[in-house]
Amino acid sequence: MTVEYDGSGFCGWQAQPGQRTVQTTIEGAIGSLTGESVSVLGSGRTDSGVHALGQVCAFDTSSGIPPDRFSHALNAKLPEDVRAVRSWQAADGFNPRFDAKGKTYGYLVLVSPVRPAILRGRFWHVTAAPDVGAMAEACPIIEGEHDFAAFCASGGGAKGTVRNVRRLSVEAHGPDPMPYMGRGSAVIGFTVSADGFLYNMVRIIVGTLMDVGYGRIGLREVGEAVATGSRGCAGITAPAAGLCLLEVNY
Amino acid sequence: MTVEYDGSGFCGWQAQPGQRTVQTTIEGAIGSLTGESVSVLGSGRTDSGVHALGQVCAFDTSSGIPPDRFSHALNAKLPEDVRAVRSWQAADGFNPRFDAKGKTYGYLVLVSPVRPAILRGRFWHVTAAPDVGAMAEACPIIEGEHDFAAFCASGGGAKGTVRNVRRLSVEAHGPDPMPYMGRGSAVIGFTVSADGFLYNMVRIIVGTLMDVGYGRIGLREVGEAVATGSRGCAGITAPAAGLCLLEVNY
Repeated sequence: MTVEYDGSGFCGWQAQPGQRTVQTTIEGAIGSLTGESVSVLGSGRTDSGVHALGQVCAFDTSSGIPPDRFSHALNAKLPEDVRAVRSWQAADGFNPRFDAKGKTYGYLVLVSPVRPAILRGRFWHVTAAPDVGAMAEACPIIEGEHDFAAFCASGGGAKGTVRNVRRLSVEAHGPDPMPYMGRGSAVIGFTVSADGFLYNMVRIIVGTLMDVGYGRIGLREVGEAVATGSRGCAGITAPAAGLCLLEVNY
Repeated sequence: MTVEYDGSGFCGWQAQPGQRTVQTTIEGAIGSLTGESVSVLGSGRTDSGVHALGQVCAFDTSSGIPPDRFSHALNAKLPEDVRAVRSWQAADGFNPRFDAKGKTYGYLVLVSPVRPAILRGRFWHVTAAPDVGAMAEACPIIEGEHDFAAFCASGGGAKGTVRNVRRLSVEAHGPDPMPYMGRGSAVIGFTVSADGFLYNMVRIIVGTLMDVGYGRIGLREVGEAVATGSRGCAGITAPAAGLCLLEVNY
């Protein structure tokens, strides 16, 4: 099943005792729809506040609801900050985490004098415009297969830190790039595709690029972060609110 | 002061006993900032669920905060679904309601197979695409100075029902017109400027145009609604969630 969610109201994807999480919310809705107690496997965790348009998850059900109608039926039981977009019968033994060949994340920065009200929680809000050209120059340094230890927070528990960043791009939109934005706002959008991601990897890549955009980190230091794997050479961790899991490839 | 707010969490602009409203929220924040008990006058009410990027309001204060810094100071006291965008010293006797020369509203319809999660509460969500060309043909029939009694819900208490709609336009954006939208989404945006608005006027104009777009109302009936002032000739009332007060002109 593909699911969309607004991460603002969730303590992330993964079930945690006493917390509202996306996983347990979907499990509860399936229970309410079919009467079954199911475990829902996601393609991976997303942190508290992180959004998804294309999270993929899987579960076993004996319900008589046709697989391609399941998402529609489930939406009647889900709260409005989670939507089941599409459902289908998976292949036997399908594992949404281990079978994933790659993922794409989007990250959005909003440049505007005042923090947004209508679109709050959906951007990293900054007041000063970074140099998008400098950030674009840094992207090819990060792209490719590297040891991304410098772009990884502790606590992920992943095996190995080598990943292949197939695409990293930054693009400026604006002024007034979308509705519900105040006059003179600009949006900077990042897109990152990789075969897999370490813990906080997208947020550290974006934070590093923004540090480059503000002249706090030079291109040579970005190269050193990639070459040495030293977390100290990379930049800050961008806030969760701007991050969205766009797609999981199988 | 110009204010932006997300209408989702408010029972509209106007103070009402026991309800969370934008007016009382701003009055409370000013009280917390300056210690004064003030009345905040708005340019007009917005209904429950209606958003604003450019609501204008005014109040008296003896605070020593410079007028152009007041908005910034107030944001520290406001909840995150209301933002003070700009503040300035008004002319003596300024009345944001009676001095308004016109207003502009935007209205957004989202066409997508599944109701949005991340952008919920910010669109009228429909699954079938209406005919935007037919709606555009109906706009000039509604534009101009007319008796808008057919486009008015009871309960507004306005004097007279003649208004001058200076501009009414409809535009299709998409596919994939803005971030945080699922693949294949389209947005239809309406813009309405007038010297003043009757109760629910924008929502009935948009509902009528959408009825035209779905072939439920013909152009001749739109002309009759304008000519006769009969509410029965106009279309449905569009939901509050897609409506946003963009600008008030003085």
